Amino acid sequence: MKNTLLIKNIGLLQTPVGSFSHKGAQQGENLKLQQAAVLIEDGIIKEISQDGMLPIGGEEAETIMDAEGQLVTPGLVEGHTHLVFGGYRQHEIPLKLKGATYLEILKAGGGILDTVRHTRQASFDQLYQKSFDFLDEMMALGVTTCEAKSGYGLDLENELKMLKVVKSLDENHPMDMVSTFMGAHAIPDEYKGRGDEFIQMLCQDVIPVVAEQGLAEFADVFCEDSVFDVPQSRTYMECAKAHGLGLKIHADEIEEIGGSELAGELAAVSAEHLIAIGEKGMAAMAKAGTTAMLLPATSFYLGKTFAPARRMIELGIPVAMASDFNPGSCPSLNLQFAINLGYLRYKLTPEEILTAVTINPACAIGRGSRVGTLEVGKQADLVIWDAPDMEMLCYRFGSNMATQVIKKGMLV
Amino acid sequence: MKNTLLIKNIGLLQTPVGSFSHKGAQQGENLKLQQAAVLIEDGIIKEISQDGMLPIGGEEAETIMDAEGQLVTPGLVEGHTHLVFGGYRQHEIPLKLKGATYLEILKAGGGILDTVRHTRQASFDQLYQKSFDFLDEMMALGVTTCEAKSGYGLDLENELKMLKVVKSLDENHPMDMVSTFMGAHAIPDEYKGRGDEFIQMLCQDVIPVVAEQGLAEFADVFCEDSVFDVPQSRTYMECAKAHGLGLKIHADEIEEIGGSELAGELAAVSAEHLIAIGEKGMAAMAKAGTTAMLLPATSFYLGKTFAPARRMIELGIPVAMASDFNPGSCPSLNLQFAINLGYLRYKLTPEEILTAVTINPACAIGRGSRVGTLEVGKQADLVIWDAPDMEMLCYRFGSNMATQVIKKGMLV
Ligand SMILES: [Zn+2]
Ligand SMILES: [Zn+2]
Repeated sequence: MKNTLLIKNIGLLQTPVGSFSHKGAQQGENLKLQQAAVLIEDGIIKEISQDGMLPIGGEEAETIMDAEGQLVTPGLVEGHTHLVFGGYRQHEIPLKLKGATYLEILKAGGGILDTVRHTRQASFDQLYQKSFDFLDEMMALGVTTCEAKSGYGLDLENELKMLKVVKSLDENHPMDMVSTFMGAHAIPDEYKGRGDEFIQMLCQDVIPVVAEQGLAEFADVFCEDSVFDVPQSRTYMECAKAHGLGLKIHADEIEEIGGSELAGELAAVSAEHLIAIGEKGMAAMAKAGTTAMLLPATSFYLGKTFAPARRMIELGIPVAMASDFNPGSCPSLNLQFAINLGYLRYKLTPEEILTAVTINPACAIGRGSRVGTLEVGKQADLVIWDAPDMEMLCYRFGSNMATQVIKKGMLV
Repeated sequence: MKNTLLIKNIGLLQTPVGSFSHKGAQQGENLKLQQAAVLIEDGIIKEISQDGMLPIGGEEAETIMDAEGQLVTPGLVEGHTHLVFGGYRQHEIPLKLKGATYLEILKAGGGILDTVRHTRQASFDQLYQKSFDFLDEMMALGVTTCEAKSGYGLDLENELKMLKVVKSLDENHPMDMVSTFMGAHAIPDEYKGRGDEFIQMLCQDVIPVVAEQGLAEFADVFCEDSVFDVPQSRTYMECAKAHGLGLKIHADEIEEIGGSELAGELAAVSAEHLIAIGEKGMAAMAKAGTTAMLLPATSFYLGKTFAPARRMIELGIPVAMASDFNPGSCPSLNLQFAINLGYLRYKLTPEEILTAVTINPACAIGRGSRVGTLEVGKQADLVIWDAPDMEMLCYRFGSNMATQVIKKGMLV
């Protein structure tokens, strides 16, 4: 006996189509079905109907869910988080209000190294439980697949601890997880002033273990002035590639030092942030088909400018948007807010935005063939919204607009 | 037998003190009690203890609630909403993305007059149910007292309909409501080009009825270039005052045309928005003791600058923050987001922010003697947060940080 679910009375079913990165005009192309229904069998989409018709056998489904005329989209795909971390950094607020610079906060024991300290001190179970609760909240907000990066351990033991937390979450939480090794997130105290040696250590001692144990699918590096420069980033990425990991790179967040060009040169699957990217970097990314993983809530939180999303689409770069959830520059896991900012700040259309939080991030984390669109044969991850259309999700903010999340055909 | 509730194990109880508007240095003064407990009797705060002590008789309370070492503050006071409205305006997004001006959207049947049309068409029951659901969500976010303005009816019948919705919500929803008549919100189609006549109609035909039926405590007017000018606003406010209504004024949102000076001149209880206010307006408000009701989420949504909150505090103006929930310029009811923006954009301290969302708005809506602080004898409206301190509420965003809301001593 198969496990079947019918979702009927869908006012509008909106979805990108196709299991590939959508770029250029495709970014804004969504299929829109009125009066639709979706039949799900054993967690897979069996049939989609429209115009008030029901899928064959739909009425005999074990469970029938009424979408009450509302919008249904694919489950959101969260393509960039630093989900697993110890502590919080709210205690930096008094310093920040006094105008302390990032460097002064670092000197006072704050900043990312504070999170590294707390993450190293935290047990596996503490990190697991904290992250598990975050995933509950993210799923209630409509996210059904989530990428998570390591990078607050910065040594073999603690990087593995973080990655094992992600693996365990993937096994035990309904959320599908994708794991990224980001040992090159910052230079830890014990390697202060010795970035080259730290990169060497990661390449010799950590990446091989991560790859052998199958703890990550991707590697990521923070390529930025006074963190890792382009040669260091290249060394790290080439090593990761040699060990079979897909490539990502935090590039051009603050200054354009060549990170996005490196992404193009090495055909990275995605480059992240890109607030300060210029035409050369965009040309390199467009040529290589590298996805721009934009993080608008970080621009918001830091009071910065916003990445040139429209220009990227014009140039044929696939655009994705993610939350960047992390305890420093973006203490928010709410991907719906990225949807708002996609409209308010990037001025993307609702269709371009839907693509940017479904199929494009799915492809950028290696899940494009399984999730990110609503099509027969794909995994039944979808959201019923308290909204008649995507416009409403762009327009309303500050409320959770997800009414019902369906993960692999199960109501969650 | 009295109805008693003990809230024990409060890690930090933080509250402004005193039933008056807090200005200047007072804005940033909060009482902070460690290891506190609160005993509530019949909805009123009976005793507050600290340092691990329990109030006398606390252990015999009917209900005992464990705050698990977290932060407790007064329930948030929402001082400015346009809660009751028909329709939504998400369908303006395609026009806005094409760069349509506000005037072009108005001409295409959009803007505030679209909301007026939908509000006039909506039945009392429809408006009531929609607003009731909003209040549920606001209360879950920590709000325990809420102001609501009319102003989408713009004729006697529909203004009264809106105000009666608010009255009925006050009677039937746990939220305490405060009602503001804002007939002078826009010039309706039937008075196009005849603003003076419209104001006259409001003064002759509507304000007296509103006052006589006790449907509002305050009156508010949108004093802005191409809406109501200063003489029209003065006429309206003087009439409202003569009928016993307290005065509020939407002033200096877009241009400084004298609204904030008028607020000072007429000793309005509050002036709203104030994005474009200058030194003269601030001096007038400071002199009169008029509260600045700042609406940071509207600045955010419209991509505008932010009101000079710090300067206002320096000048001794009491600063409050509210959501401005409305279907046009701020489709968000989330007052927690105003807390975030108070820190991120106004650069207020956590203490100043708490004052700005509790006692100061309470005073600005005539409830300062009853709510807005945690003190013996005051109404037991409070929130247990998923946070150890106010800093955490300023820092994390996009998640509902309220764990448990207590309204008049009842868990809601
Ligand atoms: Zn990141
Ligand atoms: Zn308003």
